Amino acid sequence: MINAVGRDIPDYLLKDGREVYQGRNYKDGQYIKKASPTVKRGEKPMESKICETIREACERCGAHDGMTFSFHTEFRDGDYVAAMVCKVLVEEMGLKDLHVAATSLGSAQDIFADYMERGIIVEAQTSGVRGRVGEVISAGKLKEPVIIRSHGGRPRAVEAGEVHIDIAFLAAATSDNCGNAKGQGGKNNCGSMGFANHDARYADHTVIITDTLVPFPNLPSSISCIDVDAVCVVDAIGDPNKIATKEARLTDNPRELMMAQNVANVIVATPYFKDGFSFQTGVGGPSLAVNRFLEEHMEKAGIKMSFALGGTSSAICALQDKGYVDYILDTQDFDQGAAAHLFSNPHHIEIDLSEYANAANKGAYVNKLDYVVLSALEIDTKFNVNVITGSDGVLRGAPGGHPDTAAGSKCCIIVTPLTRGRMATVCKDVVTVTTPGECVDVLVTDYGIAVNPVRQDIIECLDKAGIKHVTIESLQEKAYSLVGEPDLLEWEDKVVAIVEARDGTILDVVRQVKPYEYED
Amino acid sequence: MINAVGRDIPDYLLKDGREVYQGRNYKDGQYIKKASPTVKRGEKPMESKICETIREACERCGAHDGMTFSFHTEFRDGDYVAAMVCKVLVEEMGLKDLHVAATSLGSAQDIFADYMERGIIVEAQTSGVRGRVGEVISAGKLKEPVIIRSHGGRPRAVEAGEVHIDIAFLAAATSDNCGNAKGQGGKNNCGSMGFANHDARYADHTVIITDTLVPFPNLPSSISCIDVDAVCVVDAIGDPNKIATKEARLTDNPRELMMAQNVANVIVATPYFKDGFSFQTGVGGPSLAVNRFLEEHMEKAGIKMSFALGGTSSAICALQDKGYVDYILDTQDFDQGAAAHLFSNPHHIEIDLSEYANAANKGAYVNKLDYVVLSALEIDTKFNVNVITGSDGVLRGAPGGHPDTAAGSKCCIIVTPLTRGRMATVCKDVVTVTTPGECVDVLVTDYGIAVNPVRQDIIECLDKAGIKHVTIESLQEKAYSLVGEPDLLEWEDKVVAIVEARDGTILDVVRQVKPYEYED
Repeated sequence: MINAVGRDIPDYLLKDGREVYQGRNYKDGQYIKKASPTVKRGEKPMESKICETIREACERCGAHDGMTFSFHTEFRDGDYVAAMVCKVLVEEMGLKDLHVAATSLGSAQDIFADYMERGIIVEAQTSGVRGRVGEVISAGKLKEPVIIRSHGGRPRAVEAGEVHIDIAFLAAATSDNCGNAKGQGGKNNCGSMGFANHDARYADHTVIITDTLVPFPNLPSSISCIDVDAVCVVDAIGDPNKIATKEARLTDNPRELMMAQNVANVIVATPYFKDGFSFQTGVGGPSLAVNRFLEEHMEKAGIKMSFALGGTSSAICALQDKGYVDYILDTQDFDQGAAAHLFSNPHHIEIDLSEYANAANKGAYVNKLDYVVLSALEIDTKFNVNVITGSDGVLRGAPGGHPDTAAGSKCCIIVTPLTRGRMATVCKDVVTVTTPGECVDVLVTDYGIAVNPVRQDIIECLDKAGIKHVTIESLQEKAYSLVGEPDLLEWEDKVVAIVEARDGTILDVVRQVKPYEYED
Repeated sequence: MINAVGRDIPDYLLKDGREVYQGRNYKDGQYIKKASPTVKRGEKPMESKICETIREACERCGAHDGMTFSFHTEFRDGDYVAAMVCKVLVEEMGLKDLHVAATSLGSAQDIFADYMERGIIVEAQTSGVRGRVGEVISAGKLKEPVIIRSHGGRPRAVEAGEVHIDIAFLAAATSDNCGNAKGQGGKNNCGSMGFANHDARYADHTVIITDTLVPFPNLPSSISCIDVDAVCVVDAIGDPNKIATKEARLTDNPRELMMAQNVANVIVATPYFKDGFSFQTGVGGPSLAVNRFLEEHMEKAGIKMSFALGGTSSAICALQDKGYVDYILDTQDFDQGAAAHLFSNPHHIEIDLSEYANAANKGAYVNKLDYVVLSALEIDTKFNVNVITGSDGVLRGAPGGHPDTAAGSKCCIIVTPLTRGRMATVCKDVVTVTTPGECVDVLVTDYGIAVNPVRQDIIECLDKAGIKHVTIESLQEKAYSLVGEPDLLEWEDKVVAIVEARDGTILDVVRQVKPYEYED
């Protein structure tokens, strides 16, 4: 069936009430009966929930064949915990038919790729897919398609009962012996644990894994002891040098700075740029650089932001420290400066993924967002964006909060160079739709600005401000004239991933790549 | 059927899986499938959830005949909101067959008594029952028995699906237009909203009612906007002069001070009195006075508390400010000083009723408690305590956290004068059992100390410390010799209230009083 972004979704996937994507507000206002965990009542006396080993914790929580386990990835490439736990489940306990519900899968989970190839991990649900896991999935090694969800789609699916987590294994910088856990005060600090606390509330069992045990009570905490079954203390939960995201860099590339400046100019030209506006940037170089140009504009206009949302970098913390941002609402910290800032500034607040972006709760913060500035791997002439598949069709990206903030914000601006290497970024049809074009308002490239024709109001604003803009088709043509039209990718029939829209409908599918280096 | 505290529970009440009380740890370690609300997905754009009137909010949330509505009582006798809402439901909307799920019912809800008499409010679940509501219930005006729960029993029942709240109407000192709400910053500050936030998460619909609207986002908040459907702004949510509890007084009565000193002596003689101990007092005069004697002992011993738990008064805040208390874990604030202190001291933390005392979660704070000092209306020679029915058999009290802290703590001390007026406090059989004797360890009266014989370890400690103690029977005999043996109360057959143990079993029942002034 053809969906609202023109993708043909195989009928056999439309089971168990699953529908194709039908537009951004399709399910607004509907009622949903929330799911809930099956939990074990505490036993008295509760002196401690410490388990000597991860295996002991797994056994206490009833780890079994076929179970779904989850973990969060706010330690990013520095995370040791997911791999450590998975090794115990597979190699010590010999479990099989495992289902993974991750906030992301990347190089820190390379070992999962082995277990997928060996048929031990049989299903996965995630936002990001990178590294060897992406290659193995794209090579069709899993029997069932992986489900790719946005940051808001994950808590929605959990609350809808579409993902049921048997055991959540949650890495924490510190914990007390009853499981009050947070992202601060240890050898490995991740700051916000906004990816983790929703799991703790909805999983049947929760295990906290830390390398720094602190006295009871470890408060205020991101995870409450009432949701924790067991606490494990290990030598190291991660590598502090790899916690910061590689993408969070301050650019000095003049082309990127020029794009950032143009994004700021677009923002200033629109009516939402007024005292108390709200703002989010992605973590790419040009996106982050928008912060510094915005500062100049805010100073000139004598206004400040009400709140900055989402993943947080030191750049936005610095803006807050200068008085330009009232609140930072923080789901994850991209660098150690931001992680430390969370605990030193009372207006820098941790929020969880449901508060951030869940389309099915009573109103997430993305719905109050004025501007979001995001990057893209590809954007097509219908303004559809791809941030999941590379130019070779292999899974190597993450929707993250992209579809959520694009859908929720009043003005979504994509900033991207027209070409990357030999690839056109602006194209006729993205390989995979991860954010529907109806949610994308403006495209800023190094070769010009295009506005989505559905936003005539923004077109008028730019015209009035004397900001030049062109059609997105002309940008695509320019891109093709520079690097040529991309070759069509060749696919097998097999669907290896379902890209789920934030409301749970199917936005697109990713098929097995052909030929593929991992093929036997 | 006779239960574990010797009470005969009528068989007809033992339906829907309800059992009689079988001992303090009967259900420990069992699994429970948590209940969950049916919630409405937010609609975009979400500029505001403000409703012009309470009626509009009720209609938005689908208020209907037969529904269960809830409210919290942290504004105590100063609360205007419960009465205001109930008037709208009954008099403006003409609803009937209403069920009330309150954290307490007192003089601020006198109007509920009228609606009970008129058969409009047909069922009630509460912790406290005081004022006219108690008289009407005791007179048998409700068809179904009221269910009396402890503070921990309430969230347990909600999570077990035994109480399903259709609409929670939650008074808040401040809220933004999306429902981020807290107990601070307004004309009526209650401090902790630990009674309210659990309702917001488990009710189908939540309405915030405030008299002080503040800019978005009102963070950190006690209630998250993702759980809120509507916000109403009214002229006044309460009377700030009546928010402080009448019971929280600093005594200068020499008899009460002597008892408080003896309580402190008992504490110091037991092995849990060491650096990092934890402590809770009730709000009665002698209980509160224990704080000041403990201070002297802590100073002498060079130790401090790890945490103080529960309802919070300025007395314990002062101890924290002097460095004797690391954390205060606060469910409600008994006076304005404590309410303000919550927001000025980062180690003074709001916790909700489930974290505080729910016997069915993975480990509430009461389970980590060393000492609790509590008062009693009556205590019998089996150490059973009554804090719900007066000497006339009428409902005029509240179990609150009494049964929870008694069951969870390592040492539960009851402090009470031997007689009050013409009534023996220490008696052969309490009118109503609200806390089982197996959870009560020590009784301190103005005529001597008694230790529960099951606690031979504490008896040895007191002997070693040279603290004189007697049998509880001798205290009861002394009481009867002073004021005489109490007349047996006369009851009708009709059960007007079920006293539910914290695990959901039936601890006792209260029957209709006879004769009664409200009788037609």
